[in-house]
Amino acid sequence: MSKRIVSGVRPTGRLHLGNYVGTLKNWVKLQNEEEYECFFFVADWHSLTTGFEHAEQVGCNLFNVFYDLMAIGLDPERSALFLQSAISGHSELFLIYSMITPMGWLERNPTVKEMVRDYDIKEHINYGLIGYPVLQAADITLYKGEYVPIGKDQLPHLELTREIVRRFNHLYGSIFPEPKELLTDFPVLKALDGRRMSKTLGNAIPVVASEQEIWSAVKSAVTDPSRVYRNDPGHPDICNVYHYFEVFFKNEARSMDLQESCIKGAIGCMDCKKKLSALLNGMLLPFYERKQLLMQEPEKVKEMIETCNTKADRIARKTIQEIKEKFGFKVECHESKEN
Amino acid sequence: MSKRIVSGVRPTGRLHLGNYVGTLKNWVKLQNEEEYECFFFVADWHSLTTGFEHAEQVGCNLFNVFYDLMAIGLDPERSALFLQSAISGHSELFLIYSMITPMGWLERNPTVKEMVRDYDIKEHINYGLIGYPVLQAADITLYKGEYVPIGKDQLPHLELTREIVRRFNHLYGSIFPEPKELLTDFPVLKALDGRRMSKTLGNAIPVVASEQEIWSAVKSAVTDPSRVYRNDPGHPDICNVYHYFEVFFKNEARSMDLQESCIKGAIGCMDCKKKLSALLNGMLLPFYERKQLLMQEPEKVKEMIETCNTKADRIARKTIQEIKEKFGFKVECHESKEN
Repeated sequence: MSKRIVSGVRPTGRLHLGNYVGTLKNWVKLQNEEEYECFFFVADWHSLTTGFEHAEQVGCNLFNVFYDLMAIGLDPERSALFLQSAISGHSELFLIYSMITPMGWLERNPTVKEMVRDYDIKEHINYGLIGYPVLQAADITLYKGEYVPIGKDQLPHLELTREIVRRFNHLYGSIFPEPKELLTDFPVLKALDGRRMSKTLGNAIPVVASEQEIWSAVKSAVTDPSRVYRNDPGHPDICNVYHYFEVFFKNEARSMDLQESCIKGAIGCMDCKKKLSALLNGMLLPFYERKQLLMQEPEKVKEMIETCNTKADRIARKTIQEIKEKFGFKVECHESKEN
Repeated sequence: MSKRIVSGVRPTGRLHLGNYVGTLKNWVKLQNEEEYECFFFVADWHSLTTGFEHAEQVGCNLFNVFYDLMAIGLDPERSALFLQSAISGHSELFLIYSMITPMGWLERNPTVKEMVRDYDIKEHINYGLIGYPVLQAADITLYKGEYVPIGKDQLPHLELTREIVRRFNHLYGSIFPEPKELLTDFPVLKALDGRRMSKTLGNAIPVVASEQEIWSAVKSAVTDPSRVYRNDPGHPDICNVYHYFEVFFKNEARSMDLQESCIKGAIGCMDCKKKLSALLNGMLLPFYERKQLLMQEPEKVKEMIETCNTKADRIARKTIQEIKEKFGFKVECHESKEN
């Protein structure tokens, strides 16, 4: 029996290299291992928890997210690749879990404070933002997910999902497996300006990008601020461009003697950026080319996603049905003990 | 154009005389006025906000609630009489409204504190209980309800629904009408022990009841505690049985000289109770008889409710679809401005 994996990605913009290195590369890896059955969803409902004002922007970009996911190697014929909002079960299970989740469990969640900071939420915290871990619990267990690929920092969230599941099972009988973590060492890739990579900050390198786009992202990289003239000695240890060589192109850097050349002032930052841009382009070109092909057949892509939606919906409906049977929430004449 | 009315009842037990006098009698009246199109639902999801441990008990009683509603005069061929949980739109709109409802709006709701007291909620307050006004807003507007029959005490709740609707319309464009109150003077009927009528307190008179059941409820009424012997002078002004005569059978009481006989000690409490029981039975008998007939055709009743569910679901889906179109939450290739 294959193990069922559930995971989602927020469609808050074009997928970038940080998403890829941190999460999506691992999704492709898991998909290609025999032992897993993968359910990957585009979490459009979740995008509203931090960006409810931008619903329409999210919507505009949705199909593009599917293109990108397929371009990087996710295959809707192997993994269920679907849209969260297309499956009503997510909201139904969210509502059901709402009823059994104490406010205290949610209020002690430190991530909400982080989100308020990261997403620059100026207004009051909304009810849906406080409750996003309840929606996460629904997302995973709706498909009776057994494993969730997460990094260590995500463990408290998964524990909250497990607490909700345990409470549900305790109250109504065992319906859900407690999902386990599939711990992965997710490297955090900083942007080329040294900050967190984020579309909002304008420093993201799209994972599916043209040569020009890659160059445009790389050329504005912050290198070594103390290096004013081309032959000033550089400091690779604090240079964001050099950091990218270390992460992605260690061998190439070595064979070019990059570190030494920089320290000696023998290679200029612009040259270095051109080299990085070319290498990144070489690495990402297959994604770009695959997307060009996919974009020639939008109807076929749409059909494939719809097939996945249908598959996910069938399982989701079964889960919700099982709960409703348990509760007796249906129009059916029981032998009532009362008049 | 008929005006659309939406209202719901919690299936927390058999419907009792308090429900009838307070709400359901008015539903029947509204149904029978030409100018309204009525959507009345059995709020099974809502029953979990205060009684999540008793989901299965609620489920057992659901069909019986529909029998009772039909027995008292609600006609599924004139009003949509449906089950909340059968329509997934309630949870979807709840989730959508969650995203735009500030926690502050919900935290300042005094009714939650009352519910904690009334329903004897010992544990911590759950997320779903705090959010029940969000679910109410979804319930009403899912059908684009224009009027909600409420008492004055419910005005703050409806105002919260309107605030959510205004916020939604402001953010995403006018989709929903702001529901207006249909103010009704809902009399509050106390139980025959002088307390709030409630199934939990064991003092409820079922609105659809046999003669024996009515007598069993009436005979334990608390009359005048200071009247020990049959010919002690009574005090009708503090007697719960006399209060019922005043509410339901003013003319009968007058023609029997009930008040005077009691004050003079000429009529005993037991006699008085027997008279009340007989009168109540006469009043409620048509309901009882109609239920007996309905219970002979459970399949037909089921079919009628299912037809109503389908009707409600069709409207609900249209509303949710309209929102998804607005957001662009669907699998469809837009002309993306980005690559």
